[in-house]
Amino acid sequence: MSETVLDAAGGIESTTFHATLPAERLLTALDPVAALVEECRVRFDEAGLRVAATDPATVALVDVRVGADAFGTYRTDSGRFGLDLERFLDVVGVGDRDDVVEMVLDPETRRLRVAIDDLSYSLALLDPDSVREPPDPDDMEYDLPAAASLRAERLDRGVGAAEMVGDHVAVGVETEDPAVVVRAEGDTDEASLRLPAADLDRFEGADVTSLFSLSYLDSMCRAMPSETTVDLDVGTEAPLSLSFDPTEGVSVDYLLAPRRRADYGE
Amino acid sequence: MSETVLDAAGGIESTTFHATLPAERLLTALDPVAALVEECRVRFDEAGLRVAATDPATVALVDVRVGADAFGTYRTDSGRFGLDLERFLDVVGVGDRDDVVEMVLDPETRRLRVAIDDLSYSLALLDPDSVREPPDPDDMEYDLPAAASLRAERLDRGVGAAEMVGDHVAVGVETEDPAVVVRAEGDTDEASLRLPAADLDRFEGADVTSLFSLSYLDSMCRAMPSETTVDLDVGTEAPLSLSFDPTEGVSVDYLLAPRRRADYGE
Amino acid sequence: MSETVLDAAGGIESTTFHATLPAERLLTALDPVAALVEECRVRFDEAGLRVAATDPATVALVDVRVGADAFGTYRTDSGRFGLDLERFLDVVGVGDRDDVVEMVLDPETRRLRVAIDDLSYSLALLDPDSVREPPDPDDMEYDLPAAASLRAERLDRGVGAAEMVGDHVAVGVETEDPAVVVRAEGDTDEASLRLPAADLDRFEGADVTSLFSLSYLDSMCRAMPSETTVDLDVGTEAPLSLSFDPTEGVSVDYLLAPRRRADYGE
Repeated sequence: MSETVLDAAGGIESTTFHATLPAERLLTALDPVAALVEECRVRFDEAGLRVAATDPATVALVDVRVGADAFGTYRTDSGRFGLDLERFLDVVGVGDRDDVVEMVLDPETRRLRVAIDDLSYSLALLDPDSVREPPDPDDMEYDLPAAASLRAERLDRGVGAAEMVGDHVAVGVETEDPAVVVRAEGDTDEASLRLPAADLDRFEGADVTSLFSLSYLDSMCRAMPSETTVDLDVGTEAPLSLSFDPTEGVSVDYLLAPRRRADYGE
Repeated sequence: MSETVLDAAGGIESTTFHATLPAERLLTALDPVAALVEECRVRFDEAGLRVAATDPATVALVDVRVGADAFGTYRTDSGRFGLDLERFLDVVGVGDRDDVVEMVLDPETRRLRVAIDDLSYSLALLDPDSVREPPDPDDMEYDLPAAASLRAERLDRGVGAAEMVGDHVAVGVETEDPAVVVRAEGDTDEASLRLPAADLDRFEGADVTSLFSLSYLDSMCRAMPSETTVDLDVGTEAPLSLSFDPTEGVSVDYLLAPRRRADYGE
Repeated sequence: MSETVLDAAGGIESTTFHATLPAERLLTALDPVAALVEECRVRFDEAGLRVAATDPATVALVDVRVGADAFGTYRTDSGRFGLDLERFLDVVGVGDRDDVVEMVLDPETRRLRVAIDDLSYSLALLDPDSVREPPDPDDMEYDLPAAASLRAERLDRGVGAAEMVGDHVAVGVETEDPAVVVRAEGDTDEASLRLPAADLDRFEGADVTSLFSLSYLDSMCRAMPSETTVDLDVGTEAPLSLSFDPTEGVSVDYLLAPRRRADYGE
């Protein structure tokens, strides 16, 4: 039986985590997490690596999975560790985007050794139990009857337009003149983006709309490669679900809690 | 007779303003205004659109005309409205430079609807009478005996050089060794740009020089496309006139008041 | 006999300094000096121009030589002047990188006239005796038994990696597994760059290592063109010597004093 490594109290046992992948892919996979948090808990097993996180106010949840196939080398049993994500991404960002990053967990010292070309780092890990983790979305109840797929840059454009006029934004779907509609109202001005169903990769109509914080939605959009297709699921006074595969072997699920219209006196 | 729309007190009547033109052209036309003011009064009639403005200290005047031919669609009667220029340019800047911008005045709501590709905005207009407007240059008396034409980037280079040493600049013309001369004196250092008449597109000599605020002249130069030809008219202790057509169908006239040499103990 | 010009007390006499060279070369030659100081003393004679300087804390020394052949025109006797380097480089930077810069010393006014294309400046010079100058390295005693040559960008990469984890860095050479090693230890993390001897242009082994301030080493690396080959000479608790020719006809020698390990409680 393998030795308990990082956190005996957490009941996770591991002696092995040795993985390599291109810096570009690693950054693209973890940028969506860094959009919400500075520290995160990384879980790994034979299937791959998984990072779930929520911001301090628990407004947004992110769940990133990097499949074992996305790696060059991937030799692990199963375990978890806490990561200072900001520092880790700084370190990975020092190399070129196409450098290969090698990561080896050292259970003795509770450190992650990161090697990029002729550079090597030894990063102290965090106690995974000290890092906030989100509730499981499967335990949450909400109804998202409308769905659509669109390129991330189109969503980003609507968010950018909304930021000109206010700090919250309504994301909705309309069926009469079928479209996804992103709309913001400020004190004096209004902005809207209307994406007709005919222009979308996928469209499942229902007349729904919910209000969201623009600052969260903006951070999330910035972490999406502009050419990526995003699946939206939308309800009324319900969370917004955004799912996308930013690069090969990586999937990202965002869930953003709605703001109540009453909060804005509407 | 059409209904009075935006400002009955101002005696301007209008029901119609519907215009389209490329974002690039609109930004290029209005950047010279934004160099001086944040809000402006826009007048329009069958001939086109006109914006005249002056900075709060009334040191510089700008007069921009966009001819009806510069627009794709141009359907208007005559009227005027007040515009939050900074916000308007932010909105237009969200799109790509070659997107077409559609503007429709809504007299009912006193709003300007701006559509760019799949984005649309509704911007509250300002009471045009609340926006400062410059005196008519035709009512002002000054004598500008010397003139020259040169590329904007050459003037900008002289202004950049002058900024290294001080915060005012002399712009003059010399006849003995015919040239336009831009000169700045700081506490310890001096800078000058000498453009021989032979290198200029146009030169009408007279021995004149006037002193100007560098910060104004710098803002004005930054709003000129670098390849544009600028017509300078210069006098002694007289305003500097700068005229240029930054893009097709658009003309800009700047007038910058001189600083008195006595202000600098000269 | 020529008239004493800039500083009779300094015993340096000069009437002539007239030199031209491309802005690019001038900036590349003086950037390594600007990395340490804002003012410098320039000496010139028939062989060329020389600038030696030290930072206010006398931690780093720089010695730049620009040979007479590096200039287009070079007509001088011998002399020296004090230069406000920051202002001078700002002025030279206004032009294009391939513009020719003409410099003429005016002994009457104690000014340097700088002409770049159609721009001209007149810069007040400093009393050379008022500008700090470094001790002569030949008067200093130290032993640097190990040496290596590598491209500046590789050194810069190691310095960048080290900055992620701390604010001092060990530069050393190892003989068992022959390599240059740059290593930093922070409060929690470590970073290292290992450059095997086989990958280096030149390698003279000895087991040595010294500790240096990262902020100094970083400023020095930024002033090196990335493709330039740098000669390192390294000892134990000894200064680091970095020598390179950043552009044709220009040589730079840096000397950086070591930090004592005791300063860091090591």
